[in-house]
Amino acid sequence: MSNPITFTIQKKLDGTLGRAGLLETPHGTIETPAFAAVGTKATVKAMTPEMLTGVGAQVVLANTYHLFLQPGDEIVARAGGLHSFMNWQGPMMTDSGGFQVFSLGAAYGKDISKITKETDPQLLLSEATNDPDNPKIATIDSDGVTFKSHLDGTSYYITPEKSIDIQHNLGADIIFAFDECTSPMEPIHYQREALDRTHRWAKRSLAHHKSKENSSRQALFGIVQGGRFENLRKESAEVLRDMDFDGYGIGGSFAKEDMTTAVAWVNAILPEDKPRHLLGIGEPEDLFAGVENGVDLFDCVAPTRAARNGTLYTKIGKLNLMNAKFVDDFTAIDEGCACYTCKNYTKAYLSHLFRAKEMLAGTLSSIHNLYFIINLVHSMRLAILDGGFAEFKKAFLDKYNEKTTI
Amino acid sequence: MSNPITFTIQKKLDGTLGRAGLLETPHGTIETPAFAAVGTKATVKAMTPEMLTGVGAQVVLANTYHLFLQPGDEIVARAGGLHSFMNWQGPMMTDSGGFQVFSLGAAYGKDISKITKETDPQLLLSEATNDPDNPKIATIDSDGVTFKSHLDGTSYYITPEKSIDIQHNLGADIIFAFDECTSPMEPIHYQREALDRTHRWAKRSLAHHKSKENSSRQALFGIVQGGRFENLRKESAEVLRDMDFDGYGIGGSFAKEDMTTAVAWVNAILPEDKPRHLLGIGEPEDLFAGVENGVDLFDCVAPTRAARNGTLYTKIGKLNLMNAKFVDDFTAIDEGCACYTCKNYTKAYLSHLFRAKEMLAGTLSSIHNLYFIINLVHSMRLAILDGGFAEFKKAFLDKYNEKTTI
Repeated sequence: MSNPITFTIQKKLDGTLGRAGLLETPHGTIETPAFAAVGTKATVKAMTPEMLTGVGAQVVLANTYHLFLQPGDEIVARAGGLHSFMNWQGPMMTDSGGFQVFSLGAAYGKDISKITKETDPQLLLSEATNDPDNPKIATIDSDGVTFKSHLDGTSYYITPEKSIDIQHNLGADIIFAFDECTSPMEPIHYQREALDRTHRWAKRSLAHHKSKENSSRQALFGIVQGGRFENLRKESAEVLRDMDFDGYGIGGSFAKEDMTTAVAWVNAILPEDKPRHLLGIGEPEDLFAGVENGVDLFDCVAPTRAARNGTLYTKIGKLNLMNAKFVDDFTAIDEGCACYTCKNYTKAYLSHLFRAKEMLAGTLSSIHNLYFIINLVHSMRLAILDGGFAEFKKAFLDKYNEKTTI
Repeated sequence: MSNPITFTIQKKLDGTLGRAGLLETPHGTIETPAFAAVGTKATVKAMTPEMLTGVGAQVVLANTYHLFLQPGDEIVARAGGLHSFMNWQGPMMTDSGGFQVFSLGAAYGKDISKITKETDPQLLLSEATNDPDNPKIATIDSDGVTFKSHLDGTSYYITPEKSIDIQHNLGADIIFAFDECTSPMEPIHYQREALDRTHRWAKRSLAHHKSKENSSRQALFGIVQGGRFENLRKESAEVLRDMDFDGYGIGGSFAKEDMTTAVAWVNAILPEDKPRHLLGIGEPEDLFAGVENGVDLFDCVAPTRAARNGTLYTKIGKLNLMNAKFVDDFTAIDEGCACYTCKNYTKAYLSHLFRAKEMLAGTLSSIHNLYFIINLVHSMRLAILDGGFAEFKKAFLDKYNEKTTI
């Protein structure tokens, strides 16, 4: 049985875990490191597939949880899979649904996302989990997760096998093992329990995937967990390394200061010849840290979500288009940027579109932000291939951090 | 002083007032009859300029009233005019604001649009206008109109001169004289009073336009009014014919059965060698009637507004994408349609996007509906040029009227 993907390292970044490579998939080759556009519900919000190509997107990640609920994976399967359904002919991934189980389950209503700001005793979830006044949408047992749809309250039970079945129906080139994503604030006894469960689920995901006829067309990535604990992260990398995954995801909700160390622990152990995806991370400084520590793939909703809220990336930091001074600023969002939006529109026009609540505001802003982040990661790749990564990083971050918000 | 536009009739439709022509403007030539895409606030909602080109749009009409309020015509002027501001390099028009004065003034809250369904005594506006319990946003005097912004309640006073000044700041290729758009339900004494005012305003608009330095770059169209009354419509056409306008708009809110006769009365009188724009009309049967009766240009928000609500045009009538049966319909919106949406997406996908409230739903639907209507009017043009208009009309309407809504 041929491998669904092939990963080739082209060049390593001296003195680090970083590398540039080529990831061949059934729908084309991804030049890594690469940033995947997030198309949660089989659409990258406010953008056509042609716009994605225009901003340099090589790969789209869709969300299993959302598509299972709407329109349902059976509908997508009957449409011929995600590629055909959404008219994106390039490489695709689907996540496992594990993060949504976390964010809608244990962490529901706690405002926890992929990066938490600091340790807050209120967020100790082992307590919250059992709080009858604080009902959560999902409950986890050893076999799977029961959760209520955030759309209509219907109850569903997802097991590792079910997640794989859904992802086979969706038909992405790269799919992920079902995992439990824990909060960095969880105490070690819960992290241990959750990690053991994630490893059992990884094994079951892999076995079920291999038993299905489409496994030669879809690559399966295992997901490393373990929170902020070095021993658990390393153990997770070792356990998953020894399973026959095609690549690896690095999961978890991170405290900002923990992310880099956790990624470094893990990537020093994971097999060098397999691709690694850092799930849900997308701020510029985190992308640099990820690349230096051996990450090949990223995805994050931040660029497009921020765009729809009028927050745009520039080389000197983020700007908020609702700021009054942009109303008559007839320059581009980011001077010198080669994206469609910057080449054709001014801050004054974008500002007008946002104030007038016009849909084109979200489209033009998403084009810019996605171009900015995809191009940033692509520039890191080129800096690995051509040399000068450290200089590029310093020059970029020095300028970017001049102002946080313009 | 050179003329800003040149209109050439290429072929007449035998036995009717219809014709196919070429309208040259400073930003390119419009092949007529043509349907203008409406870009109310300097954006055709949910579409990029490239998408407009893709659906065959030749000309965009923006709204003076809306742009005056937001972002303000001075901002647009400083951006270099509408073409530069919104990145549309083809021909543009701006309306005069007269219809908004009507719809936000005398008709405010009365659910009156360009086509009224039937005579309803409740709609006799001469009564409603003086009803203290029913405050309206606008009041009209002989010199101009006082109205409150629907955005923030600020009061403004617009005169014919002010409308022309705003439209010069906006910089469209074709602009319109300030007029009063009346309801078809108004009694004749009010229609007479309003029409005399519209004619005085037309004269003032023209004089003010000619006094401005940019008048050689912008064509001014006068607007014929007169409600449903044959004598007033004919008088209006005669009065405006004798003024030196570059072309004519036919205005008014029409009772459906009156539109065709009103257009025929007017176009038999207006100078044959000048272009005529039927304002705000866009349903297929009305477009056929307009073309047969000598209309060269149309505009209407209907195709894009319906699209955003999930109502799509097809050769056999309109369909509503929220209908449950489309959830697993893997065929195109309109089989055989050559638009981007029909070539690449299914009803099932569009149905999913609408149910998931995804922005791409509005974009893909607007592309289809605008393509459908623009292409319909363009096909009428070809049928005039090549012969076979009557056969084309019968074949299209027979099929289109098979079902009203699918």
